Amino acid sequence: MPTQIPSKQIIEAAHIRIAPYIHRTAVLQSKQINEILNCSIFFKCENFQKVGAFKSRGAVNAVFSLKEEELIKGVCTHSSGNHAQALARAAALAKVQAHIVMPNNAPKVKIAAVENYGGKIYFCKPTQADREKTLEKVILETDATFIHPYNNLEVIAGQSTAAKELISEIPNLDIIIAPVGGGGLLSGTALSSFYFGNNIKVIGAEPKNADDAYLSFHSGEIHPSNDPQTMADGLLTSLGDITFPIIQKHVEQILVCQEETIINAMKLIYERLKIVIEPSSAVALAVVMENPDMFKNKKLGIILSGGNVDLSGFFESLLDA
Amino acid sequence: MPTQIPSKQIIEAAHIRIAPYIHRTAVLQSKQINEILNCSIFFKCENFQKVGAFKSRGAVNAVFSLKEEELIKGVCTHSSGNHAQALARAAALAKVQAHIVMPNNAPKVKIAAVENYGGKIYFCKPTQADREKTLEKVILETDATFIHPYNNLEVIAGQSTAAKELISEIPNLDIIIAPVGGGGLLSGTALSSFYFGNNIKVIGAEPKNADDAYLSFHSGEIHPSNDPQTMADGLLTSLGDITFPIIQKHVEQILVCQEETIINAMKLIYERLKIVIEPSSAVALAVVMENPDMFKNKKLGIILSGGNVDLSGFFESLLDA
Repeated sequence: MPTQIPSKQIIEAAHIRIAPYIHRTAVLQSKQINEILNCSIFFKCENFQKVGAFKSRGAVNAVFSLKEEELIKGVCTHSSGNHAQALARAAALAKVQAHIVMPNNAPKVKIAAVENYGGKIYFCKPTQADREKTLEKVILETDATFIHPYNNLEVIAGQSTAAKELISEIPNLDIIIAPVGGGGLLSGTALSSFYFGNNIKVIGAEPKNADDAYLSFHSGEIHPSNDPQTMADGLLTSLGDITFPIIQKHVEQILVCQEETIINAMKLIYERLKIVIEPSSAVALAVVMENPDMFKNKKLGIILSGGNVDLSGFFESLLDA
Repeated sequence: MPTQIPSKQIIEAAHIRIAPYIHRTAVLQSKQINEILNCSIFFKCENFQKVGAFKSRGAVNAVFSLKEEELIKGVCTHSSGNHAQALARAAALAKVQAHIVMPNNAPKVKIAAVENYGGKIYFCKPTQADREKTLEKVILETDATFIHPYNNLEVIAGQSTAAKELISEIPNLDIIIAPVGGGGLLSGTALSSFYFGNNIKVIGAEPKNADDAYLSFHSGEIHPSNDPQTMADGLLTSLGDITFPIIQKHVEQILVCQEETIINAMKLIYERLKIVIEPSSAVALAVVMENPDMFKNKKLGIILSGGNVDLSGFFESLLDA
């Protein structure tokens, strides 16, 4: 199969297609974070995006790219995370059914969110095999189109629009850093940086405890994700055969970070920017904190991927105090 | 003493005076919060303000309103909260010394923040009497000007600019709600609503467990705050003889709320707006949640007063997980 890469025109069209349905999210700075880290960081706040994550961009683009005869049969996916909500919402906007396969141990709040958007849920055992088997059954029954969470050209084109907005707003960035799980956001970020930026280097950020993308990047072959133990629960998946070649071609390097640094990065963002992000979002800042010399005096863009985090422990502690 | 009320011109001048030194903070909305509460709420995000609270406005205005011969002697106050940081920062901007009396049990992070802005700290016992005694000594020694945290005309004029910005950005608000502690923010909000709004009603929000402003408002006499037990640690103080008459004249009513509702309001704001606020900020939304009929279908402004909250328990729990 030849390498498939969305063109500049495809990304421009995606941006126009999704614009009515997504937020053009804020770009924030913190003078104090810049002073602490000796660089100038522009945070693209996809935690403020619809459903609280950049996933809305790709899901909307994928759904609204379908031909009428496909669209009316609905869409489906398997996901316990932000893509499930994002696809359910995108389908609702297009007035078609979303069929979502979720593991039977998924958090209640995520199940409720999908149902709230009118998504039909199919529970499966929490294994990759049962996920896929259940999804196949759903496809057989419904003929709905499978929208993969990241290994999908329209999804990648959609995710690329976050970096496209950042680049158009902040000129002359030296580097953009995005977290990498399956690679939808990172490959999209790399494409927008290549098409719309002025020689911007793109760096992927990954927890050391889930370093399959790092290993893949250095070996040239996709390493499967092997039961990763990280709090960055959006970054557990392996690269796909569409995302990986784009990353190989357009990403400068992948840096990994420790779990403790992810927490310190979250803390810095909560305390200084006063915004709520999920652990997966903090990984991009964490690699800056672990590699201060590499980023000294640079003008950096960081994609904060989402803000869906369980804070119930914090609120319970307030009630007990 | 005749009632002292900053005029429209005083507030306009204050806004011009402080503009170079403060953020014009964002106004955010959440479709989901609006749907849950059946009204349209515009949140003025002073948690994004310099030093993380609206207090920057009043402190900068007070310091930059001083005559040259006063200014060079420096400024002083007693505070363990946001005013201490805000005054230290304002003095640093004006290149004069801030003398800050703080209780010896103040959180280390707040002490460090004041020191970071170059403020000189004088520790006292954590009683009102020792605070005042220590401050008197500081004034005798330094001849610095005392900038009261709220019972000060320039401070009130400064705080009023948050509502002024909100009103200029969002036309035709029915109601603005601000939390009330000493009344600096509430009296300023009421003045800006009166001068710049179109028949906007202003409501003060207070924890039931610290309802001295509510009692004062209804009795016509300032009730002292009597060892209040509330998580809204910015709202512990009593009204002052400058703030109270303004509130009596220009505030429609004061509503109180339960501690549990404060937490639920915080939770809604963290989860839906994805921003970090302190408990005192959540009190304004809490009174809406407790009085749904009163606010149904209304166009509301809410001043989110600040974002300085101790989240260390939350981050520790992430590390343990």
